[in-house]
Amino acid sequence: MSTCPRIGLLPGDAAGIGPEIAAKLLSQALEPEVATVVIGDPRVLARGAAAAGVALGLPTIARAEDAPAGAAALLPGPAIDPAAAPVGQVSALAGKAALDGFRMALELAAAGELDAICFAPCNKQAMHQGGLELEDELRFFVQVLNFKGYVGEVNATDELATTRVTSHVPLRAVADLITEDGVLQAIRLARNTLVAAGKPHPRVAVAGLNPHAGDGGIFGREEIDVIAPAVERARAEQIAASGPYPSDTVFVRARDGGFDAVVTMYHDQGQIAMKLMGFERGITIHAGLPFPITTPAHGTAFDIAGSGSARPDGLRQAYRTACRMALTRRA
Amino acid sequence: MSTCPRIGLLPGDAAGIGPEIAAKLLSQALEPEVATVVIGDPRVLARGAAAAGVALGLPTIARAEDAPAGAAALLPGPAIDPAAAPVGQVSALAGKAALDGFRMALELAAAGELDAICFAPCNKQAMHQGGLELEDELRFFVQVLNFKGYVGEVNATDELATTRVTSHVPLRAVADLITEDGVLQAIRLARNTLVAAGKPHPRVAVAGLNPHAGDGGIFGREEIDVIAPAVERARAEQIAASGPYPSDTVFVRARDGGFDAVVTMYHDQGQIAMKLMGFERGITIHAGLPFPITTPAHGTAFDIAGSGSARPDGLRQAYRTACRMALTRRA
Repeated sequence: MSTCPRIGLLPGDAAGIGPEIAAKLLSQALEPEVATVVIGDPRVLARGAAAAGVALGLPTIARAEDAPAGAAALLPGPAIDPAAAPVGQVSALAGKAALDGFRMALELAAAGELDAICFAPCNKQAMHQGGLELEDELRFFVQVLNFKGYVGEVNATDELATTRVTSHVPLRAVADLITEDGVLQAIRLARNTLVAAGKPHPRVAVAGLNPHAGDGGIFGREEIDVIAPAVERARAEQIAASGPYPSDTVFVRARDGGFDAVVTMYHDQGQIAMKLMGFERGITIHAGLPFPITTPAHGTAFDIAGSGSARPDGLRQAYRTACRMALTRRA
Repeated sequence: MSTCPRIGLLPGDAAGIGPEIAAKLLSQALEPEVATVVIGDPRVLARGAAAAGVALGLPTIARAEDAPAGAAALLPGPAIDPAAAPVGQVSALAGKAALDGFRMALELAAAGELDAICFAPCNKQAMHQGGLELEDELRFFVQVLNFKGYVGEVNATDELATTRVTSHVPLRAVADLITEDGVLQAIRLARNTLVAAGKPHPRVAVAGLNPHAGDGGIFGREEIDVIAPAVERARAEQIAASGPYPSDTVFVRARDGGFDAVVTMYHDQGQIAMKLMGFERGITIHAGLPFPITTPAHGTAFDIAGSGSARPDGLRQAYRTACRMALTRRA
């Protein structure tokens, strides 16, 4: 029985590149200070290992706590026949299996048997066909856990993390959704996530909403009336927050090492920058929940699934972050 | 008297880095085929030269046409006592002097005495304090010239140009300003400017307004109702336009060589990307007017003004572009 932190690793959508990159990750050096609990159907993992050209030979365990430190073991997850979920195709079966795998991992983590979860890419269309009625997986996690606190996506590369005050809403709806409490919560989420990931005093920049951050109120007053007061409240909580900064220069300053996180006001404000800064190799942390959940930023890449060409870099980064966060929680 | 094209060079806000980078530019090799007419207060230029650590010794001329080819000469512009406009501070006096300098250069260009204008950064707040009642300097140019045609900013690096359907307006006002005619005009402006700059068949990508370009109408309908029809009309005019594309991936594709220009819907959509793709080299062309007007994309940088550390790269690129466009007009 392992007393070290246990990381639940999910291979993601059975028809995508997930099982393949999970197999590549598992065939390489794992984190020595954690136990890696792979949750999935052994046949799906075997198909991924075959595509990856690696031999895994994972021991099968019946309980997460039986996973050995410094190694990986297979805890059989929801059954899915690989033949019924052809590689490279959107499949309701694969979507349902992904959701069932999430549910199993979430319940184990809620029961204290896992310290963190890392999952390979899932496919939104497949999950919707497989029964997901919510907008995305984060809302699904919140529902399964019956969680009442503030949650959000943190997008991160090696250099920079971002949070957002608004996300999947029409641009015309954004300005009215920017509230002082909303900005403060996004600042806290950025700070708390980075602290949890082992950076004790993160520098959090807050982007403005308007061109030139409103230019002294000439192009909009949200910076003066809403965002600046939220930054002040964050500073009163001893968070190293600053801004609001013009959003077209804050990312240049962050890239040059000036900030550890940028709090953005809307989806594309952060995503335009992050995708230019290498976010396809980055990760998403589903933050604010009672335990860390991480995943690579890239998708299921159905076009190359099964070819053996998918790179495990993003999944490895997500896995390492989950491990680091789990170790920090225990420290 | 010079018969070659004459470029008006304005040092910008007297309290910013403009006079300093103008002095650096002028101390280096100028374009040999044009005459460079520096329009400003000699004392402000001297302060910039001192900060830059260069000696200029420009000859003073009384008329633009007296400027010699392949060199620069000083045509004294609106007077401003440097002592009344301290370096690094927003100043109504500096703002007013910048506006007066614009007016002088515009009238010279309208009279055929200048072929193009290049100006170092100005400060919007200072210009507003100094009497600017319009949204930005481009509208000021239009007013001074009593120009009736369509104008817009083209932002450009060596690799990519952008135009925008809306510019210096609050984000909450953007969606209602996205019209089919407006998108079409921004597409045309991008195409025409690139053609004028020597690229005969530019590929023009059009960004969406909403996250994921609306995701089929789920996060907003402007892509379906407004932007796509404008792209169709542009294609009917034989413009190689395409889109609308999600704005968080269109710049990655453009950077990778997929497009020559991206038409954006609002200021920061393009500026976040452009500043990450070449902040120091980025320039703005005030396009559509009877003559080219260029300026660096960066601002007055009050925080480093006077320190001598500001780099002239952006101003040099703006100057070179103005020269090239003036030479093309004459060709």
